Amino acid sequence: MTRRVGVWLFGARGSVATTTIAGAAALHHGIPPAGVVTELPDFTGTDLIPLDALVFGGHDVVETPLSKQVERLMTGGVLPPGLDRLIATDLAEAERQIVVLPTGGPQNELIGRMAEDIRAFRLRNDLSQVVAINVASTEAPYEVPVTTAAELREALAVPDVLPASSVGALAAFEAGAAYVDFTPSTSIRPAAVREWAVEKGMPYGGQDAKTGETLVKSVLAPMFAARALPVHAWSGTNLLGGGDGATLADPRAAESKSISKERGLAEMLGDVAGDVHIDYVDPMGDWKTAWDHVLFSGFLGVRMTLQFTWQGCDSALAAPLVLDLARLSALALDRGHVGAMPFLGFYFKDPIESTEHALARQYDELLRWTRSC
Amino acid sequence: MTRRVGVWLFGARGSVATTTIAGAAALHHGIPPAGVVTELPDFTGTDLIPLDALVFGGHDVVETPLSKQVERLMTGGVLPPGLDRLIATDLAEAERQIVVLPTGGPQNELIGRMAEDIRAFRLRNDLSQVVAINVASTEAPYEVPVTTAAELREALAVPDVLPASSVGALAAFEAGAAYVDFTPSTSIRPAAVREWAVEKGMPYGGQDAKTGETLVKSVLAPMFAARALPVHAWSGTNLLGGGDGATLADPRAAESKSISKERGLAEMLGDVAGDVHIDYVDPMGDWKTAWDHVLFSGFLGVRMTLQFTWQGCDSALAAPLVLDLARLSALALDRGHVGAMPFLGFYFKDPIESTEHALARQYDELLRWTRSC
Amino acid sequence: MTRRVGVWLFGARGSVATTTIAGAAALHHGIPPAGVVTELPDFTGTDLIPLDALVFGGHDVVETPLSKQVERLMTGGVLPPGLDRLIATDLAEAERQIVVLPTGGPQNELIGRMAEDIRAFRLRNDLSQVVAINVASTEAPYEVPVTTAAELREALAVPDVLPASSVGALAAFEAGAAYVDFTPSTSIRPAAVREWAVEKGMPYGGQDAKTGETLVKSVLAPMFAARALPVHAWSGTNLLGGGDGATLADPRAAESKSISKERGLAEMLGDVAGDVHIDYVDPMGDWKTAWDHVLFSGFLGVRMTLQFTWQGCDSALAAPLVLDLARLSALALDRGHVGAMPFLGFYFKDPIESTEHALARQYDELLRWTRSC
Amino acid sequence: MTRRVGVWLFGARGSVATTTIAGAAALHHGIPPAGVVTELPDFTGTDLIPLDALVFGGHDVVETPLSKQVERLMTGGVLPPGLDRLIATDLAEAERQIVVLPTGGPQNELIGRMAEDIRAFRLRNDLSQVVAINVASTEAPYEVPVTTAAELREALAVPDVLPASSVGALAAFEAGAAYVDFTPSTSIRPAAVREWAVEKGMPYGGQDAKTGETLVKSVLAPMFAARALPVHAWSGTNLLGGGDGATLADPRAAESKSISKERGLAEMLGDVAGDVHIDYVDPMGDWKTAWDHVLFSGFLGVRMTLQFTWQGCDSALAAPLVLDLARLSALALDRGHVGAMPFLGFYFKDPIESTEHALARQYDELLRWTRSC
Repeated sequence: MTRRVGVWLFGARGSVATTTIAGAAALHHGIPPAGVVTELPDFTGTDLIPLDALVFGGHDVVETPLSKQVERLMTGGVLPPGLDRLIATDLAEAERQIVVLPTGGPQNELIGRMAEDIRAFRLRNDLSQVVAINVASTEAPYEVPVTTAAELREALAVPDVLPASSVGALAAFEAGAAYVDFTPSTSIRPAAVREWAVEKGMPYGGQDAKTGETLVKSVLAPMFAARALPVHAWSGTNLLGGGDGATLADPRAAESKSISKERGLAEMLGDVAGDVHIDYVDPMGDWKTAWDHVLFSGFLGVRMTLQFTWQGCDSALAAPLVLDLARLSALALDRGHVGAMPFLGFYFKDPIESTEHALARQYDELLRWTRSC
Repeated sequence: MTRRVGVWLFGARGSVATTTIAGAAALHHGIPPAGVVTELPDFTGTDLIPLDALVFGGHDVVETPLSKQVERLMTGGVLPPGLDRLIATDLAEAERQIVVLPTGGPQNELIGRMAEDIRAFRLRNDLSQVVAINVASTEAPYEVPVTTAAELREALAVPDVLPASSVGALAAFEAGAAYVDFTPSTSIRPAAVREWAVEKGMPYGGQDAKTGETLVKSVLAPMFAARALPVHAWSGTNLLGGGDGATLADPRAAESKSISKERGLAEMLGDVAGDVHIDYVDPMGDWKTAWDHVLFSGFLGVRMTLQFTWQGCDSALAAPLVLDLARLSALALDRGHVGAMPFLGFYFKDPIESTEHALARQYDELLRWTRSC
Repeated sequence: MTRRVGVWLFGARGSVATTTIAGAAALHHGIPPAGVVTELPDFTGTDLIPLDALVFGGHDVVETPLSKQVERLMTGGVLPPGLDRLIATDLAEAERQIVVLPTGGPQNELIGRMAEDIRAFRLRNDLSQVVAINVASTEAPYEVPVTTAAELREALAVPDVLPASSVGALAAFEAGAAYVDFTPSTSIRPAAVREWAVEKGMPYGGQDAKTGETLVKSVLAPMFAARALPVHAWSGTNLLGGGDGATLADPRAAESKSISKERGLAEMLGDVAGDVHIDYVDPMGDWKTAWDHVLFSGFLGVRMTLQFTWQGCDSALAAPLVLDLARLSALALDRGHVGAMPFLGFYFKDPIESTEHALARQYDELLRWTRSC
Repeated sequence: MTRRVGVWLFGARGSVATTTIAGAAALHHGIPPAGVVTELPDFTGTDLIPLDALVFGGHDVVETPLSKQVERLMTGGVLPPGLDRLIATDLAEAERQIVVLPTGGPQNELIGRMAEDIRAFRLRNDLSQVVAINVASTEAPYEVPVTTAAELREALAVPDVLPASSVGALAAFEAGAAYVDFTPSTSIRPAAVREWAVEKGMPYGGQDAKTGETLVKSVLAPMFAARALPVHAWSGTNLLGGGDGATLADPRAAESKSISKERGLAEMLGDVAGDVHIDYVDPMGDWKTAWDHVLFSGFLGVRMTLQFTWQGCDSALAAPLVLDLARLSALALDRGHVGAMPFLGFYFKDPIESTEHALARQYDELLRWTRSC
């Protein structure tokens, strides 16, 4: 029998998770894998596990059934009409693998209970490996008061030392799972958390998947650089509704997002004027529109502009990347990779332990790593 | 004394040529070299000749003084106000190097007279090398009735066998000059012309510089490909005035342009629906606006769009690339490179003897060649 | 019992007709009448018949059931999911009222048979009046070789004197029905057809409903005029798929469209440069995207631009206007109005017997007429 | 001799004032009056004074010569190259009419000194009337602690009771001048200031000229309303540099702007989601780009969008309107109009004592008033 790999989703009932689970099921039923990068011909012959070897489970604070979420996403145009009937069995199966996120008590106990959930998922499904991916709502920035894994271990005897995302990361490491943060939350940012991962021999990656405006920036900014065209200002406005929009309507959560959004531009082009806005526009539902305005100079300083408008559905752009990251992290586990996975920078606005933001180079790096053995 | 390199421009009084000549002079006076790729730090330490080693001359059918053209371009916002006073001496010097394009008679004689003009330019200015660059108006597509250099040589005993661009290319080869076509004209397309270049031991490159819409396409199309996002339709409208616009208002000249514009998209993304329009809008003057609309799918086939609007001044984007191409072709001559220069594909919509259109890879290839020895 | 009014649709199985019929049924079931202008508070208290007094029938060349069309439009996002179940009974009823368009034979006989179909519809449904509306595919321009109704009557003894749209208009007049052309086809353009309408004492209106790009133009152009800002160029590109797109992919049909599209701009702003493109982009389905670029001057001639992108679904914009036009034409019949209805100009790109294109003034004129008695 | 009318500008050395003064001079030299509404044929035969009867003066806190400002605006592309030479004499004349804004001391004394400056301007130039127009920088919102003119008169014995804009308005009224506020500042907002104007028998108008994004909104919003298309969200981003941009980079000044920007939309369309951003982007200089995104529904609730991008130069759009407002206010003085001038609503985002924002109706109202006698 083929080995199977578990994908443990933090935020397992959210839009991204639901689209991932429903979409993976749809692929089994023959819908083409649009957006799944690791299905490109370039990746043929690598050691990636097949997509149908993935088994989904996860934690969530809410208990809305996946089938309800699928219905909502169908109405919103994120999932194709009729999908619910096609994948009813798969959804029911995934539903059984999702458990309520435990809360309360000292955080070391919490980590223990969460790790136990992950281990149980592995045993129950006879999984050779588990990869944990954080697709929960973006948190506000958070200062962790300790700097080493040892200090952190002591500090965890009380509640509220770490934000939920970091607690999840530690639970994954304790359960022997790889961890990838799809969001800009705190999770693996603190040095103490990273040290902990290394002590446990686990790989980690992230952060903040680039699915829309930042994706486009990551090819346009290198274009200006390669053509020696000075960029004076880059301004952006993002309009989005849905759960993600509502979260980002909180200025503290939006701050996490803006920080990772702006990092790439600065590292690609240096100091450039202009703001990035993230506006919650409830009637947009799961759809997002981004408008960017770039002011640059040509020869002898003559001013020119480039504007773009991106209209996409974040969940439908994110979900296939979750599948990619699951396969790639499983490969890293196979190879015994420990610590940061900078070769996953292709997927992220704020690539961990990497300063490369140009998409073409990130792709080459990803491919090189995947093909190497 | 430093060696100097001649840049022989076909269309030496046009907007691109004038901006190139005026701009090169401006750089001598301390204006920063925005848009000159070979001035990027990546190119430091290579064997490229300095920018101030370039000496300009050329052929044109018209006799309007360069100073008049500079004035017109200043009014149109292509050249900065006050530039004419700064570079008056340089312009007067370049003026002396431009000769009227000979016409009439059998084309072999014509080639001889043009080659003689180029040789005289070299001697008069004590140039170690000459590089010829075609920046004349785009011609209509043209079928050349012969396939070998030998046949061509015979056929040239009469007029009108070749279009003007190919006559210019042959004149360059005869004069021992490298040749680069900045336009989509016939020039070096016929196999017979290329064979002739090889017989003379000369390098050639082109065609059709990518300065705006196609430049942006050459980074966006690879982005969709790298993210496995199927592109269903890519539509474009280009509005432009000025002399270039007037030329392209002729549907036959526009055809040449459209052919080279569309090649890259097909080679990068396969079969994609959508038209490209090139509209002459006289009141736009030397400015160009391109709007592109891309319809693509995300996961499970959900439809999304990307639109961009590019507002630029073609001459100001083209001129610094002419400087690049002059330096790079001079280096190719130095290295004894014979035949096509596919490593210049970074600059062109229709890169000769190359099927690579992705800008990032083209840049890497250019850099690799320039740095090699 | 309330009186009921028949709406006879030429092209009764097309996207606009199907959306109209399905939409009218949806309104009976409580969906709010978005886009129905005559439901605005301004029209309260006028003599317009209620929306639920409208009964639909029509001619079509195809026999695809309405229910199939509804399904297709639901998949394409034009009609809301689940609508088919809500309105199944209404659709079945409308289905019975649609008859196959007769063809062949001398056109006077054809007119007779079509008029008979309309009369039968009236009797069968006990309708106090009938209004015929042309929502069939756009025809190519057509020269009618006679100038008076008397000449026309004689000429009709043979086939192919008139295009289908004009045949339909005459059939309506013969059956005592008002006639409105929602398309730019020939229909009521010939003087002979108009004279015929007057002889029969019937009102007629049109042409070419403004639902998207031209609608926006009809408020932006007056804005520039009212602010004394000279417009130099107005360029537009329309991308559309679906049946309408396929029809307009035929350059002759597109010509009819372009003529009526361009009339308003010339009458509002005088001579302005710029082209209008209509591109068939099959993967866009029933959706349309229009991009317009306006180049204008401010004080002292400084150049500025306005661009807009309209993304809409034509059928969903057109259908509520069909309901408006049915009610308004029924009112005209009530009032004994004979001949052209220029007060309907608000709805049309090419308003019959009117040179007013500014939307605000057209609205005022419509309201004035509707409220008058 | 023809009578002459004085135009007293608060902020007489700013970009709008300089463009107004320079532009009026340019018109005398034969440049066509683009953007001057009162020069449209509709206004022929009305009692408006000729444009060359206007004489300019004003207050400013800075002392930079007008000629310097003209030079800066020429470099920035706001004024045409070479204008400085054409209008040198006119500029020198206007320069003599500008005085430094007095400051310090109790505000009643300040008002007296400022009124004295205006009176001296009138006498010195033999003006039949004076119209004061506020084109100074936008102030932060300000609460005035009194409600009647009588209370205000008492309160003014100390400094800092009123913001500068209101002090200017009172000075105008004291000097027998009409007053128009081109900005969203406090000026004539307080009831006490308006009562004061009425006591002095003076007309006043404003506020916040609509020159770009809001102008376009004032025709698009009525379009949606007239077509019964529900608007769900209207989002806008304004990018601007220059002095105006720098002022609005202060969030408190931007608040004044946003309040008046948003008023019209609410009054035209009711409650609509979406934010308006005003971003200071220094490298944009005197140019402004606004992007608006409108989400609306068609029939049966299907979602559609309209986006527009406006690229203009505010000063060049504002200046001709200042000329209009000067002529129109002079006419109001002639006619003995006292108090608010709501018929000037055509020019303003926040039209005083009017709730009409639809441009077409505002134009009709303006024309009706101007033509009446």
